[in-house]
Amino acid sequence: MALKGKMVIGQSGGPTAVINQSLVGAVLEARKHPDITGILGARHGIAGIMKEDFIDLGAQGVDELELLARTPAAGLGSVRLKPGREECERVFDVFRKNDVRYFFYIGGNDSAETAHIIAEMAREADYDFCTVHLPKTIDNDLKVTDHCPGFASAARFVALAFMGDDRDNAALPGIKVNVVMGRHAGFLTAASALARQDEGDGPHLIYLPERTFDVASFQSDVKRVVEQRGRCVIAVSEGVADADGNPIAATGERDSHGNVQLSGTGALGDFLAARIREAYAGESVRVRADTFGYLQRSFPTIVSDVDAREARESGAFGVRHAVENGDNGSVAIRRLSGQPYASDYFITPLASVAREATEMKDEYISPSGNDVTGAWLDYLRPLVGELPRMGKLF
Amino acid sequence: MALKGKMVIGQSGGPTAVINQSLVGAVLEARKHPDITGILGARHGIAGIMKEDFIDLGAQGVDELELLARTPAAGLGSVRLKPGREECERVFDVFRKNDVRYFFYIGGNDSAETAHIIAEMAREADYDFCTVHLPKTIDNDLKVTDHCPGFASAARFVALAFMGDDRDNAALPGIKVNVVMGRHAGFLTAASALARQDEGDGPHLIYLPERTFDVASFQSDVKRVVEQRGRCVIAVSEGVADADGNPIAATGERDSHGNVQLSGTGALGDFLAARIREAYAGESVRVRADTFGYLQRSFPTIVSDVDAREARESGAFGVRHAVENGDNGSVAIRRLSGQPYASDYFITPLASVAREATEMKDEYISPSGNDVTGAWLDYLRPLVGELPRMGKLF
Repeated sequence: MALKGKMVIGQSGGPTAVINQSLVGAVLEARKHPDITGILGARHGIAGIMKEDFIDLGAQGVDELELLARTPAAGLGSVRLKPGREECERVFDVFRKNDVRYFFYIGGNDSAETAHIIAEMAREADYDFCTVHLPKTIDNDLKVTDHCPGFASAARFVALAFMGDDRDNAALPGIKVNVVMGRHAGFLTAASALARQDEGDGPHLIYLPERTFDVASFQSDVKRVVEQRGRCVIAVSEGVADADGNPIAATGERDSHGNVQLSGTGALGDFLAARIREAYAGESVRVRADTFGYLQRSFPTIVSDVDAREARESGAFGVRHAVENGDNGSVAIRRLSGQPYASDYFITPLASVAREATEMKDEYISPSGNDVTGAWLDYLRPLVGELPRMGKLF
Repeated sequence: MALKGKMVIGQSGGPTAVINQSLVGAVLEARKHPDITGILGARHGIAGIMKEDFIDLGAQGVDELELLARTPAAGLGSVRLKPGREECERVFDVFRKNDVRYFFYIGGNDSAETAHIIAEMAREADYDFCTVHLPKTIDNDLKVTDHCPGFASAARFVALAFMGDDRDNAALPGIKVNVVMGRHAGFLTAASALARQDEGDGPHLIYLPERTFDVASFQSDVKRVVEQRGRCVIAVSEGVADADGNPIAATGERDSHGNVQLSGTGALGDFLAARIREAYAGESVRVRADTFGYLQRSFPTIVSDVDAREARESGAFGVRHAVENGDNGSVAIRRLSGQPYASDYFITPLASVAREATEMKDEYISPSGNDVTGAWLDYLRPLVGELPRMGKLF
């Protein structure tokens, strides 16, 4: 028998282009189930729950929700808060007080961990309660699932950006460094490879956090490409680090998770541009660096169809699972086939995705360490969807 | 009677999303005129002409050209070269040698000046010759014309970027600086204002190169907005300068025009982020800076329909004018009506657009100097086209 009571849903961590699809998918599914007696949206995730700052999502018009689903970033507001035991207790108190029996948390591995702690607390207190984590992250670094909702749309942005920027660089040849998001996992940076359509297209070099970044090798890689092609477009993950694990460039600011600030600064790009100029000591070279920044996770209209659909369906699947089975877990995607692409959803234990993240498999990274493999492109292409072809005269 | 001979067409300066529309518009029009006996595309503009590095554009398939028209950046290759008298003479020699009677140069005011010098040379030498400048620039800073092909697509990118980034900032509140291209003219930065759909939407502050940038005023503006709204999204033109005209932040590199490098570096954004942190001495604030960089001029699929059509038509118009009238000039756009939008084309003397650029009119800038006016939005909106509506829960 299904649990009867209210549900709370919240969004956490860095927004994505389709995180609101998951929200709307969950809300519309919840409305079908009379055992869910109220749908509360928590403003700014856990922070909002602690303050009982809720929006009644049972009352929104469907058109309004559909509009929200197509809107990037987190409509409920997000939060970067890894709550401690005490804060989780406060959350649990609020749930009890409001007769909340379902909790859906849309986020990455930190959010899965939060959900896991709260679920454990309910179990210890013998409180009938169900927690489901709904995956989202542009980093694609959650364990178990084939890929994460949010990733493919950001990957589409990155691929398109490199397609255009490579044409720009071909028009005005020079050396171009583009810094892409991704602290520990290079998935998003590796998506730049989809920009290549013809021999000679950039990106010509791809640096991922899965491999040690060595400045001297970087300099000689760039010079080699320029010698061969007269230009060079480079994709670099913001998280690249030296052999000791120190980020190559960081401003020193740390977020509440204790992580060094990598995004929202041009520091790494400018550092690498300076190292390239250094490698060409004396010679005149045109070197530019762009940092894609927040645009890649929140640009309206640049959305992968597969991503939007899966984000929506994973939200609905999570709610259906909770009502039908009443047990905790995280929604994961299983790839049934690559060509034509097909997927379905399953539930994996919260503990299996909480805390630890994953990174790119070795088979996706070329032996040289500065490129990706065909296996990576096979994995990625169906998720991102068809890309426009670039016209060329030479 | 029309001049009989070959035509040369080239592209110059920073690429745009629709500069290839102008190229294709000109080429397809030229094919209709038997007096044009050959269509030569110059690789990398003036630099290619001097080397007689031409592509036969009479031979391309129409499908191939249509594909190119939809592709951002300059398909022929571009160049940042302001040729001196000697170089123009070399160009003129090549034209004579190859029986070139028409020269079409797609570019900004520097390209118009180049075209002007070559036209003067032909006149002095009594060589029957016609030069037409086809306008393009994302900066929108050409004189005479109502607006420039290339601008509206870049403006669309900027508006969409701010729409998404404002939702991102609302989800994770903080202070966000976005640096937009525009050395002397603030048109593109001012396009950020189109992102506002509801009261409270960002950008909350807009800084243009047309007004002196004062760091202390900037700091107090930001603090005021944060106090009122709990967050602040800021649009800053890369060209903002102090009372003495010195760019607020510059890396020191200069291009071949003697201009300080402003794009392709995160220096200004990082400088401003540091000034904001300074203004909050001791307090913890979330400050991020993104520099939109080259993405805003070359992102595939983000194109204004009006811009694509006008770029195409202005190329065709220039060729038709040259064949029918044989006189030199620059193509300009006249706005016939704003609502519904309608425009046509006319020819203005090369000298009227060469060298000097223009900037935003006072009536487009708010008296405070850190925002735009309704008149600006009325001017801009029909060029950029309809934008998606952002869904919101609060």
